[in-house]
Amino acid sequence: MLFVNGSPAPEEGPRISALDRGFTLGDGVFETMRAAGRRVYRWEAHLARLRAGALLLALPIDALDLPALLDDAPARAALPQAVVRLTVSRGVDAGRGVAVPPGLRPTVVVRVLPLAPPPGEPARAIVATTRRDERSPLSRVKSLSYAGSVLARLEAQRRGVDDALLRNTRGTLAGATTSNLFAVLDGTLVTPPVRAGALPGTARAFVLTAAQGLGMPAREVDLRPRDLLAAKEAFLTNAVLGVRPLVAVDGQAIGDGHPGPRTAALRAAWDEAWAAFVAGAS
Amino acid sequence: MLFVNGSPAPEEGPRISALDRGFTLGDGVFETMRAAGRRVYRWEAHLARLRAGALLLALPIDALDLPALLDDAPARAALPQAVVRLTVSRGVDAGRGVAVPPGLRPTVVVRVLPLAPPPGEPARAIVATTRRDERSPLSRVKSLSYAGSVLARLEAQRRGVDDALLRNTRGTLAGATTSNLFAVLDGTLVTPPVRAGALPGTARAFVLTAAQGLGMPAREVDLRPRDLLAAKEAFLTNAVLGVRPLVAVDGQAIGDGHPGPRTAALRAAWDEAWAAFVAGAS
Repeated sequence: MLFVNGSPAPEEGPRISALDRGFTLGDGVFETMRAAGRRVYRWEAHLARLRAGALLLALPIDALDLPALLDDAPARAALPQAVVRLTVSRGVDAGRGVAVPPGLRPTVVVRVLPLAPPPGEPARAIVATTRRDERSPLSRVKSLSYAGSVLARLEAQRRGVDDALLRNTRGTLAGATTSNLFAVLDGTLVTPPVRAGALPGTARAFVLTAAQGLGMPAREVDLRPRDLLAAKEAFLTNAVLGVRPLVAVDGQAIGDGHPGPRTAALRAAWDEAWAAFVAGAS
Repeated sequence: MLFVNGSPAPEEGPRISALDRGFTLGDGVFETMRAAGRRVYRWEAHLARLRAGALLLALPIDALDLPALLDDAPARAALPQAVVRLTVSRGVDAGRGVAVPPGLRPTVVVRVLPLAPPPGEPARAIVATTRRDERSPLSRVKSLSYAGSVLARLEAQRRGVDDALLRNTRGTLAGATTSNLFAVLDGTLVTPPVRAGALPGTARAFVLTAAQGLGMPAREVDLRPRDLLAAKEAFLTNAVLGVRPLVAVDGQAIGDGHPGPRTAALRAAWDEAWAAFVAGAS
């Protein structure tokens, strides 16, 4: 189900102006979240990142009543467990070019889909030739200008694997196309820092906190692709997938090529927290 | 006037699906061109770049009859001198995420506007903090993921100037937000090479050829911001603006702070070539 500026609409059919800067310039931000009942899971974390992106792009979102635009969406779509994508573009611009004219009203699209079961198979990835520019402030927010990730994923698709890991301009890993990367190296859970181009993911934050709770040492460190081949385990995280084991990179097994015990423990922590949220929301 | 997949439509109102990947992921390419009568100016050069972008993003544009989608647009809009923006997105994707499913049909939007007279004032620019990633193949095509340029232009707007110059990740200049950069240094016309992150602009190519015709030595060289302060002249080029003098950067004058003679000669060459095209098209 689709909601454009608060109005429900069937997904089919035109809903967006061809002059919307989301379409013409990738000018906007988005969040993809889980929801149950009327509630969005970890909304405050998603809102904080959305605000950071809006601030960076000088997108006036404070006048939008986002909770009101979101609250009813999962319930109206009558889904007990849903994925909600919230898109906020700069809005319709009758001008031409990149200059931002005053007075534009952001376009808000809320799309609600059933939460699909997690992929049954662990992920296999390549290291993409496409890089992520860790020096750009855009690497720390979720803007609509996502062609870099599309390009990397296309490379993965051509090579017959699930995902692509992106290096930053210095050659260390930033993450995967739509998820954060973790590995277990010398008994420590490690993940690339935000300054290396890692998106400050909400599931990434959950996992770092959960690791503490489980007494698992965890650190943000620069990782090179070859470090993954020395890792005992690796996994990918995002707000929809949760924790997905990563068992191969560029055709070489990570650890013994099967999901490891720390990955399983963190995945269980994620699943438990979600189940508790769903129970509270119903 | 607006044409979506070949059908004329008023600009107002929704024309694009909210599931179009142009809107959700900045997944597509575009060209902005001049046109007169039924003809697009320097179409072959624009088509070549569009094809390069489509090839990079695996966008199937060969089945689209782009000349047919474009030919009538300027004439139907009844504009003797027009700007035509051609946008080709990957199309409507009912899925979610960046993976490219098979069978999508690209969305083609053609927008026609009157060609505005060139800005009366020469341009003043800043050097943006935002960089252009010269290592990304996306830096050599015109994708819809344009938030980096929006960010740099916002910086220029905040500082009260017309445009922003972007450095690449190594610190040399790539160009401005929507145009290529030229300077006159030690009697030679210079412009950043494509490997430095310069978009292979169609007006840039025109100017390099015109300089030859005028017996003006011209070279592609890496330029640092401080080189501009040693330059006698500088200007910006794109397919719509043509040649626009650039007289200040970060508040410091370039040359004597006025458009120079080589800039004027190249601008005259551009204007003459355009006038000849318009005369032939009418």
